[in-house]
Amino acid sequence: AKSRINNPLLATRIMSAAQAAALIKPGATVGMSGFTGSGYPKAVPAALAERMKASPFKINVLTGASTAPELDGLLAAVDGIATRLPFQSDPICRQRINDGHIDYIDCHLSEVSQYVWSGFFGKLNVAVIEVSAIREDGLLIPSSSIGNNKTWLEQAEHIILEVNYQQNLRMEGMHDIYYGTALPPQRKPIMLTEAGQRIGEQYLRCDLNKVIAVVETDSADRNTAFKAPDDDSRRIAEHILNFFEREIEAGRLPKTLLPIQSGVGNIPNAVLEALDSGPYKNLSAYTEVIQDGMLTMLKSGTLTMASATAFSLSPAGIAEFNANIELYRDKIILRQQDISNHPEVARRLGVIATNGMIEADIYGNVNSTHIMGTRMMNGIGGSGDFARNGYLSIFMSPSTAKQGHISAIVPMVSHVDNTEHDVKVIVTEQGLADLRGLSPRQRALTIIDNCAHPDFREALHDYFARACASGRGMHTPHLLNEALSWHERYESSGSMRSGRK
Amino acid sequence: AKSRINNPLLATRIMSAAQAAALIKPGATVGMSGFTGSGYPKAVPAALAERMKASPFKINVLTGASTAPELDGLLAAVDGIATRLPFQSDPICRQRINDGHIDYIDCHLSEVSQYVWSGFFGKLNVAVIEVSAIREDGLLIPSSSIGNNKTWLEQAEHIILEVNYQQNLRMEGMHDIYYGTALPPQRKPIMLTEAGQRIGEQYLRCDLNKVIAVVETDSADRNTAFKAPDDDSRRIAEHILNFFEREIEAGRLPKTLLPIQSGVGNIPNAVLEALDSGPYKNLSAYTEVIQDGMLTMLKSGTLTMASATAFSLSPAGIAEFNANIELYRDKIILRQQDISNHPEVARRLGVIATNGMIEADIYGNVNSTHIMGTRMMNGIGGSGDFARNGYLSIFMSPSTAKQGHISAIVPMVSHVDNTEHDVKVIVTEQGLADLRGLSPRQRALTIIDNCAHPDFREALHDYFARACASGRGMHTPHLLNEALSWHERYESSGSMRSGRK
Ligand SMILES: CC(C)(COP(=O)(O)OP(=O)(O)OC[C@H]1O[C@@H](n2cnc3c(N)ncnc32)[C@H](O)[C@@H]1OP(=O)(O)O)[C@@H](O)C(=O)NCCC(=O)NCCS
Ligand SMILES: CC(C)(COP(=O)(O)OP(=O)(O)OC[C@H]1O[C@@H](n2cnc3c(N)ncnc32)[C@H](O)[C@@H]1OP(=O)(O)O)[C@@H](O)C(=O)NCCC(=O)NCCS
Repeated sequence: AKSRINNPLLATRIMSAAQAAALIKPGATVGMSGFTGSGYPKAVPAALAERMKASPFKINVLTGASTAPELDGLLAAVDGIATRLPFQSDPICRQRINDGHIDYIDCHLSEVSQYVWSGFFGKLNVAVIEVSAIREDGLLIPSSSIGNNKTWLEQAEHIILEVNYQQNLRMEGMHDIYYGTALPPQRKPIMLTEAGQRIGEQYLRCDLNKVIAVVETDSADRNTAFKAPDDDSRRIAEHILNFFEREIEAGRLPKTLLPIQSGVGNIPNAVLEALDSGPYKNLSAYTEVIQDGMLTMLKSGTLTMASATAFSLSPAGIAEFNANIELYRDKIILRQQDISNHPEVARRLGVIATNGMIEADIYGNVNSTHIMGTRMMNGIGGSGDFARNGYLSIFMSPSTAKQGHISAIVPMVSHVDNTEHDVKVIVTEQGLADLRGLSPRQRALTIIDNCAHPDFREALHDYFARACASGRGMHTPHLLNEALSWHERYESSGSMRSGRK
Repeated sequence: AKSRINNPLLATRIMSAAQAAALIKPGATVGMSGFTGSGYPKAVPAALAERMKASPFKINVLTGASTAPELDGLLAAVDGIATRLPFQSDPICRQRINDGHIDYIDCHLSEVSQYVWSGFFGKLNVAVIEVSAIREDGLLIPSSSIGNNKTWLEQAEHIILEVNYQQNLRMEGMHDIYYGTALPPQRKPIMLTEAGQRIGEQYLRCDLNKVIAVVETDSADRNTAFKAPDDDSRRIAEHILNFFEREIEAGRLPKTLLPIQSGVGNIPNAVLEALDSGPYKNLSAYTEVIQDGMLTMLKSGTLTMASATAFSLSPAGIAEFNANIELYRDKIILRQQDISNHPEVARRLGVIATNGMIEADIYGNVNSTHIMGTRMMNGIGGSGDFARNGYLSIFMSPSTAKQGHISAIVPMVSHVDNTEHDVKVIVTEQGLADLRGLSPRQRALTIIDNCAHPDFREALHDYFARACASGRGMHTPHLLNEALSWHERYESSGSMRSGRK
């Protein structure tokens, strides 16, 4: 294949992944590309892991969001990660976090960049960034995610570039890198008023003098197939679509809705599918990630424009994207994550935020991250950015997990990521709870009756009734010595059931 | 006194408070002025309470934030409030909430206005707004707070104005009412880039046809004297000032800091006092409330400009303000609360948010609202707006309450208002915990050692050690059946002490 390293100076820095990995010092803080399994470096992390196997050391790993087995998995497996942020979803990395071997800092994805700029996480030693190509003038053509790449390139002392020949060169021009950010007191308004608006540049700037290595790769982004929506997901999607219809009738939503933000996973994908088969036209998306469902909607015209920071496509989705890239080129914009998730923009556009959750409590607090209060699943990701600032914030989950042994609706969540102040709607396959304008006690009845699985409803009502009768505060009635007992019961017996009725 | 009702049409609507109150229907949703004890209607609520005494009924009460005994107190005392939002701090109102007689909806103060515009709380029937005067052209000169007045005037079917002759007419021109807000998808950037910048108009617009009554009053805003800072507050202030100094040295804060947001109360006032006696010059404030300390700082030149939505002055502070109003006029701007607390602006300016808290847990989650998990104290107020979006978010409390029987640092907070993702610094008189860049377990050690009272430190370390050894997740180690036991112990024995060591 024709070389994609068109800058003469950088062409002199081409080396093997092992040589490049050798330039990263033990203990270094490394900003890597990668967001929801796309655009992450494919070779240097593996070479680094090999080095660590031979002689153990650790580094601190910052990314956009989740990466893939080739990055988080390999480095975690050799115990090579000291501190990890801001998001991960890798099984091995997760296990190391929950074993106490990795210090994990779970952040709002919009805020990571400003913290690095402000020096809140210390100095960034190296950036390892995947790109599609390097132009003759040294500008970088980004690959399938932007994430924090702009910040890593700007803030790191040294830069290692991975040029991936599998990334479609026709993506050139789909990216929008905004160079107007600054630290306070120099910050200016971000003049973005529509999801499809461009406010930046097509390429990533790069100080060529900082580039210590260029590595060529040729491997596809990790991509997992979507399952067809199951019954629960379809029912959740149906409840949400009915809710949108009622909101439009009541004049609280325009017919074209408001820009959709959609989390990753099977339920969000089912919602997209339902929207696509509904009466909707000319919707837009202002979200983190382009998944398969969005391609379908863009093709059908349900969706006019989608703004995100990354792709997260199945193998079939990647094939579809590459086959019809001319169609998608003009309808998709990839931005850095501090813009795709920016509170200012999310609030201005009034996104409809739809995200998954681990559990919610009867008062509308949402746990997005912790299994039984102690074990990290993935991280808060962008859910807080969008839930706090969106026009509507919707949290979704099946009403039970683990073959019905776990209720997703509990007396008190075992960890809070999105507070009662930020959660407007909760949906399970059982139904939808519209919490707007309700006090905590009103929310409790609505959530139990609409969202809890029938097998747990009576026990929840019983808890609530006894909490109300306890003589403690009636604003948010709780029995403190029982509030977390459902989780404790699950830990000791493998089921939240069989408690007192 | 010369009449302050200079509009001929509105002059014909003058009536007594009793007559005006008679125009409010039972069950009505009423938007009243008032923010931290200033600018609330002084006569109509009392007349309404009299009517309720004679023949009981309830209304829904929306305000800017807290009001005063003459509003919340009187209405709560006659059980006249069905639903209350977004904030209160009145002892009788609080008791009614915690008795279960009032449905209280505790909201981010920046968000109330958009929810009313969006119809999330239903229809607003009546606005009852205190003003300083009515101009001949019908424009309203606001009084000592703006809060949600703009939204109430725009959204209510009917308007009742209270013209208060005690409000200083020289406040004219200090207000900045921004008429550029809209609902999505029509929202535009808010072009505010400095705390002291004006982006709006001096007067509140008012559809004269909606005005059903004008009531004249002559009573001062409720005003409570500040206590001189006690030792704990002074020590907390000292820790914060030392922290600022280190941040400036490290290049993470400019010498003029960043715009200060300061909660209400004795600790925030002590911080202001400490700032004023420190080396600082030309600071600015972008905050909710102007309290006494800010006047002192404006006079001394420590502070150049202060932007807020309300005054909250002691009697001495009011006297000082009135005596030197020509000095303060140009240095203080009062805005509506959806601008004073706007996430977009708070983030852009990079405010330093300093707020009180009820308690924090060892992992950095903050409870701002609930006593022992069930009883509402005041509400989240603006703390979430500023903590989420500020450059730094600092939460402060003495390390103990109730003569040392309560530890403000607990294994798990009994309610979460500001999550681990949003809390950067915790301070007690014992010391300061800088949580930036720390994982949950690292935070635990830092918070226990720096902030907990020595009497509780050993028990906290013991909890943490046993949680780490429990075999559960090591990301956020907890013993679920013990996590809230300190609170339970306080409820049953009156002390968090005497637990197992
Ligand atoms: C919450 C979240 C984990 C749900 O993911 P999902 O794929 O929709 O949900 P699933 O139902 O497949 O559950 C994932 C796992 O959590 C488990 N789980 C779900 N609810 C649970 C509960 N209440 N208690 C214990 N485990 C639970 C499931 O059993 C499953 O575990 P398994 O893989 O061992 O079977 C996911 O949405 C998430 O990480 N959210 C936070 C980040 C975010 O919101 N990003 C959005 C912006 S892109
Ligand atoms: C948290 C908050 C109540 C602290 O207020 P404060 O006046 O600084 O604190 P105090 O130490 O005087 O405590 C107030 C009361 O709470 C009690 N209290 C404080 N900490 C407590 C704890 N951990 N457990 C139980 N009670 C506690 C005190 O004993 C006191 O009660 P009392 O009046 O019956 O004696 C107050 O800051 C608040 O309401 N914050 C939320 C709103 C906000 O942050 N607004 C900021 C934007 S303006």
